[in-house]
Amino acid sequence: MAKVTIKDIAKRVGVSPTTVSNVINGRHGKVSSDTIRKINRVIEELNYVPDFSARSLVSKRSRMIGVIIPQTEEHPQFLLENPFYSEFISGIEKHLREQGYYMMLTGVDKDTTYLDVLVNWNLDAIILLGIYKEGLYEQLKEVKVPVLLIDSYVEDSYFHHLRINDELGGYMATKHLIEKGHKKIAMVSGHLKENGVSAKRFAGYKRALKESGLSYEKQYLFADSVSYEWGMEAAKEILALEEVTAVYCTADLIAAGLLTGLHHAGVSVPDELSVIGFDNLSISRMTVPALTTVNQNIFSKGERAAETVLAILDRGINAIEKNQEMEISILERDTVRDLKE
Amino acid sequence: MAKVTIKDIAKRVGVSPTTVSNVINGRHGKVSSDTIRKINRVIEELNYVPDFSARSLVSKRSRMIGVIIPQTEEHPQFLLENPFYSEFISGIEKHLREQGYYMMLTGVDKDTTYLDVLVNWNLDAIILLGIYKEGLYEQLKEVKVPVLLIDSYVEDSYFHHLRINDELGGYMATKHLIEKGHKKIAMVSGHLKENGVSAKRFAGYKRALKESGLSYEKQYLFADSVSYEWGMEAAKEILALEEVTAVYCTADLIAAGLLTGLHHAGVSVPDELSVIGFDNLSISRMTVPALTTVNQNIFSKGERAAETVLAILDRGINAIEKNQEMEISILERDTVRDLKE
Repeated sequence: MAKVTIKDIAKRVGVSPTTVSNVINGRHGKVSSDTIRKINRVIEELNYVPDFSARSLVSKRSRMIGVIIPQTEEHPQFLLENPFYSEFISGIEKHLREQGYYMMLTGVDKDTTYLDVLVNWNLDAIILLGIYKEGLYEQLKEVKVPVLLIDSYVEDSYFHHLRINDELGGYMATKHLIEKGHKKIAMVSGHLKENGVSAKRFAGYKRALKESGLSYEKQYLFADSVSYEWGMEAAKEILALEEVTAVYCTADLIAAGLLTGLHHAGVSVPDELSVIGFDNLSISRMTVPALTTVNQNIFSKGERAAETVLAILDRGINAIEKNQEMEISILERDTVRDLKE
Repeated sequence: MAKVTIKDIAKRVGVSPTTVSNVINGRHGKVSSDTIRKINRVIEELNYVPDFSARSLVSKRSRMIGVIIPQTEEHPQFLLENPFYSEFISGIEKHLREQGYYMMLTGVDKDTTYLDVLVNWNLDAIILLGIYKEGLYEQLKEVKVPVLLIDSYVEDSYFHHLRINDELGGYMATKHLIEKGHKKIAMVSGHLKENGVSAKRFAGYKRALKESGLSYEKQYLFADSVSYEWGMEAAKEILALEEVTAVYCTADLIAAGLLTGLHHAGVSVPDELSVIGFDNLSISRMTVPALTTVNQNIFSKGERAAETVLAILDRGINAIEKNQEMEISILERDTVRDLKE
């Protein structure tokens, strides 16, 4: 059977295709309720399914939300290398699917002309992860769709933001170690870009140290990349500092690598060295020992991101709080030793 | 500045909008080469970007590929819980992006009417992961787009297939253990659905045992779900069988859980017990010790999936080999002990 079209329905009911289209797209204004009933009955009889690609041109809604993930310079090809993205995207997809929306998922590299194309794909909204060059934000502002920035500290009132308080998370992680009696605390992190997430998590570390009367020691800081490999490498550096009793990693991926590196070096965690991570990735329950970390509920954060853009579409760009923050907490597992016990 | 439209270009060049549209969509037949040159110059001057949502209606190409992941019954919400999906999708996305295509990523649950909508979104092709009820395949056949099934043993010449030889992989894994001197080999797997991937990997295990004159022992088989949690639980069951010296896990996710379970039980791998996995997930290099496994290059498999559907679109559904198989190999890391040494 050929695909049922609006014309078929129109013919059967005896009205114009425009009338059918108006009813399908919820513009009932000039159509009698009798006609609406007839059209809906025929739609059901013929098992008609609207072609959203066509409909998007009429209603100006594509029901498609774009999710953009940056390609980092170290790993330009592997979109979901960091499990953070997979978990976050799972949350977005779940909520969109439940609401009858679709997700277009894409990476974006330095070739920003790609984005020109993307934003012209008639997306209803864009969820943007990561940090980009300034030019991209200006381009995004010219497109008239809502843009939600995730974990970004870009100061621009045009955009909506969803993030956690990264500075507070860094403070909480460090404070947790201090409360367990640790005084010589090293930190391993990704590159400390200004206004980046790692830099904020570093600021929290320094605040906690200062508040507890501990001095910040530059030689305790190891910043490179958010990767498992860097964590493994950093283990050697940490072990050269004999006085250190605990390590705060600004990402679970780094902490997982650190634990492996320490294991290979024959160092027992937490007996000889304590470790705390950040994010509560699903892999953090799989490390040996299981990782104590700062829990940001990544899946829920994805759901919240989807909820937020749909709320903006529903109620308008000014009706929704511009800066949304998710709760965080310390999740105690098995990698931090209480020195007071 | 208002968005540049085809009308603006037409006005500037002094031709009809239809002519401009024809040139943009590659229908140069009736247009003089001089006019084509003029149009292209103005497109560049005005920085015009085609609206693909509109274009898809004209050219019948949306440049959008749908990727569908099943929602399992145990975890109906977490789309990318299994890292296999993230790695596979990363490969797809990379290739599509390079070729100027887009990816719509979605889960699908038992409510198959959702799929009706999906296939009407004017997708150019569909990449389908996992196994579904028969009705879904019939629905897919009615949509006139290429469908590539991943890791499916559905017998139907309508579809294209991309998979590995799962039976052979199971055989290779078991054979590897036998070659290292193991004779009492347990197996831990997901649910053994007929024609499912786990069942094929189980068949290979039995073939290798038989070929080596070892008998298959029913009490050595532990089948439940492809999950980390099941691996942890299975550790207890395995340890009750004192004579077993090696365990073949049909998925790395299970093997990772098993390693943790064994660690908690104080069992040293590989000294006291050997373990081999299957898939070579990125987490398999993160386990302690690092996991020996059957390597299917998941990222490349994703790239190949994207290549395949684009080749079908380019060269026609009958020009491309229906059943494509990726190579597999044993990747030796640190979890299998050679009993002969």
